[in-house]
Parts: sequence; C-alpha cells; structure tokens
Amino acid sequence: MKKAVVLLSGGLDSATVMAMVQDRGFEIFALSFRYGQRHSIELIAASKIADDPDVTLHRIIDIDLRQFGASALTDDIDVPKRTDIKNIGDNIPITYVPARNTIFLSYAMAWAEVLGAGDIFIGVNALDYSGYPDCRPEYIASFQAMANLATRSGVEGKSTLTIHTPLIDMTKAEIITAGTALGVEYGQTISCYDPDDKGRACGECDSCLLRRKGFTDAGVDDPTPYQAAT
Amino acid sequence: MKKAVVLLSGGLDSATVMAMVQDRGFEIFALSFRYGQRHSIELIAASKIADDPDVTLHRIIDIDLRQFGASALTDDIDVPKRTDIKNIGDNIPITYVPARNTIFLSYAMAWAEVLGAGDIFIGVNALDYSGYPDCRPEYIASFQAMANLATRSGVEGKSTLTIHTPLIDMTKAEIITAGTALGVEYGQTISCYDPDDKGRACGECDSCLLRRKGFTDAGVDDPTPYQAAT
Repeated sequence: MKKAVVLLSGGLDSATVMAMVQDRGFEIFALSFRYGQRHSIELIAASKIADDPDVTLHRIIDIDLRQFGASALTDDIDVPKRTDIKNIGDNIPITYVPARNTIFLSYAMAWAEVLGAGDIFIGVNALDYSGYPDCRPEYIASFQAMANLATRSGVEGKSTLTIHTPLIDMTKAEIITAGTALGVEYGQTISCYDPDDKGRACGECDSCLLRRKGFTDAGVDDPTPYQAAT
Repeated sequence: MKKAVVLLSGGLDSATVMAMVQDRGFEIFALSFRYGQRHSIELIAASKIADDPDVTLHRIIDIDLRQFGASALTDDIDVPKRTDIKNIGDNIPITYVPARNTIFLSYAMAWAEVLGAGDIFIGVNALDYSGYPDCRPEYIASFQAMANLATRSGVEGKSTLTIHTPLIDMTKAEIITAGTALGVEYGQTISCYDPDDKGRACGECDSCLLRRKGFTDAGVDDPTPYQAAT
C-alpha cells in the first residue's frame, strides 16, 4: 500500500479529501496542527475523522503562530461577520494567517520524507475560498518544486514528492456532492472561524457563509449545528 | 532602517551572517529554534550573539521535530565520529534533519510578512558543508520563488521577499576570515553536533572537523573549547 500524508483540519474540505484518499486505497498518515487557533473544537473534529482503520497514525503538532500574531484567527482581532455572501471582498481578509499553509506543508514534507511517502494531500480550494494567497494553484506548484529540491530523495533522484490538491478547482457545492457520495459525515466537521464553546457555528463568518451556500447549491441538507436559527 | 529577519543557530556561520547584516545597517529580528536538538547550548550561544543594540527582537520558537525522528541530531542515533576529514563522504549523513531548513525558512517568512520585512538571511553553505540537500543554491532559489507566491505581498505585488545566503559559496576559512574582520567573537559560537554539558566541542564530528580545518586554513587561532586536547 502506498503511504500518503493527509493534512486534516477538521473542516469540510479536509474531511472530503480524507474520503478521497481512502477511496484511492492509500495507507493514511493524518497530520493536524495546534497553531494557536482560537478554538480547539476543530482538533476534536479532526480526531473523530482520523479514527478510522485506514489511518495508521494521526499526529497533532504544536506550533505557535501566535508569536507572530497579525491574524484574526490567532490574535486578539475580531472575526468579521457579514449578513450577505456578496459582501466578501476580493482583498485578503484579516483571517489570513501569514505563511500558514507553507508551515503546514513543510511539516508534511518532513514527515513524508521520514515515512518514505511520495504523496501529500491538502484540501486547498481556489474557487470558493477566502482569497488566501497560499491556496492558489501556482503557489502549490511552486511548493512542490521546492520540496523536490529540499529533500534527501530529491538529491538522490530516488523518488519525487507530489502535492495533491483534489479540491482546488471545485466549488463548495461540488465538494459537498463528491463527499456525500463517499459517505463523509459533514455533521462531524467544523468550518466556522468563531464557534461557541459547544462547537456551534456562528453562521456569519466568511467560512460559514461559503459552507451554507455550498449545502444549498448542492441540494444537500446542512447538518451544521448553528448558534441561533440563522 | 530596513528590517531583516536573521536565522541564528548559535553556530559559526550564523554568527558571521549576523555581523554581515549589522555591517549593512539593517534593523535585525533574530530567529532561533528549539527543535528537539540534543543540546540547548547552541541556544545559549544564540542568545549571547543576539544581545546587541542592532537586534530589536530575538525570538526562540519551539518546534518538535522529534515527533518525526530519523536524524542523529534529534533522535537516539549516535553522532558519527571520524579521525580524518577525508572520511566525510558524499552521501547525506545521518545528522541531516528532514526538511529542517524548509521549516525554519517558513517561520522566517511568516515573521517577515508580519513585520513588513523584505529580507531574510540564512547562513547556509554549499562548499564546506555536510551534504545536506537544503543547503544548495537551487533549493534556496526555489524557496524564494515559492515564498513570493505564498504571501500577501506576493499577491498584491507590493514587495518581494529576498532570501540572502551570503556564505553560500565561501569556504569555511573565508567565512572565518570575513567574520574576524567584522569582529565576530567565535569563542561565543558552537558548531559541535555532540558537545558535553559544559559546551565543549567533541572535535571529531563532521561539524568540528570542518570548523577546525577552517581556523587552520584561515591562519586564525581556534578559540573553541574542546573536550580533550585533540
């Protein structure tokens, strides 16, 4: 069985990626991060998703991005709320965490090298996303080129590392449709940037708005617990 | 004053880089890592070097590379000792830490973005080095290309990030000669992979052999404290 490292946040996208990797028959090594995010509820969700016979190991790495601050997800800055999805602008929002995906992929690359795994899966998405620079296809291609120069196998010419982004050109509705067909339990996942302490979603942050619209467009019942009847 | 992030290990190379960056008049933000290395003596050395009016801030980030293992520097594997520098082979040695420089540079990139710094300095060296894949110029160029796609500034086209490697084509003797001219106190630095608990160098690991030869070739007295008269 080929080994794959799968980045698992506990959100809708990475849960779908996990189901796709299982469907392709990989032996899975799941990787999550405790990175100073405001809530650890998404790590509980990640652990539930990783509790599966296809997952050989689930590691949660501590990294302290709060030392650098400058994001609403890790710093004392309010998460922006909106009443309408049309108000999501083209600018990079304050919820952007500087260099987050680069740090995540660097750890995944380290683990892949130690495991002898040639495949890393990450659930980035360039369509229904929040305008983050490190979710774009040109960024991922560039990381892969760098990774193949950075590692022992790259020098020795033995094997190459592939960064897979199966969701990159899918809409949120297409992701939900694909995941539902593979049996993903989306009620286990959490996407909200600002959940309450019971893990209920706010319904109004960019991530909630995109997720809600995804379920509506896919024609799938939204199993997300919300804080109020929104 | 332009801001620069300088990776500071506490070794001979990064101490020399620090002096070069000071000489060029940057405001310095020094970055070190507690990455599960066997000894924390190099972090004490880094703190001494960073205790300087040109250094605005010195951050030490905790990262646990021991979770992945597979290196003599972070795992329970003996550091190889040699009696002769000629016995250093062409293969990547067991002291290689998978993806270490990529993880270090990813954090540096995160901090640079938050600070609005456009310059990162790292003391990698492609000549008198230990055969690590992530010390080669093609790797650094590739990281820089990736970094400029990964960040807010790269998307907005406002500024670009440069990864400076001033030592990359210098011999160890040339590095020591340059640093000595800039007043680097090499007795404060530590290069040994296997120092004793007093911080004295073993004299026999690859890093000690390269350092000792450097002082000899440069015609500079070696101020390194060794464990025995080697």
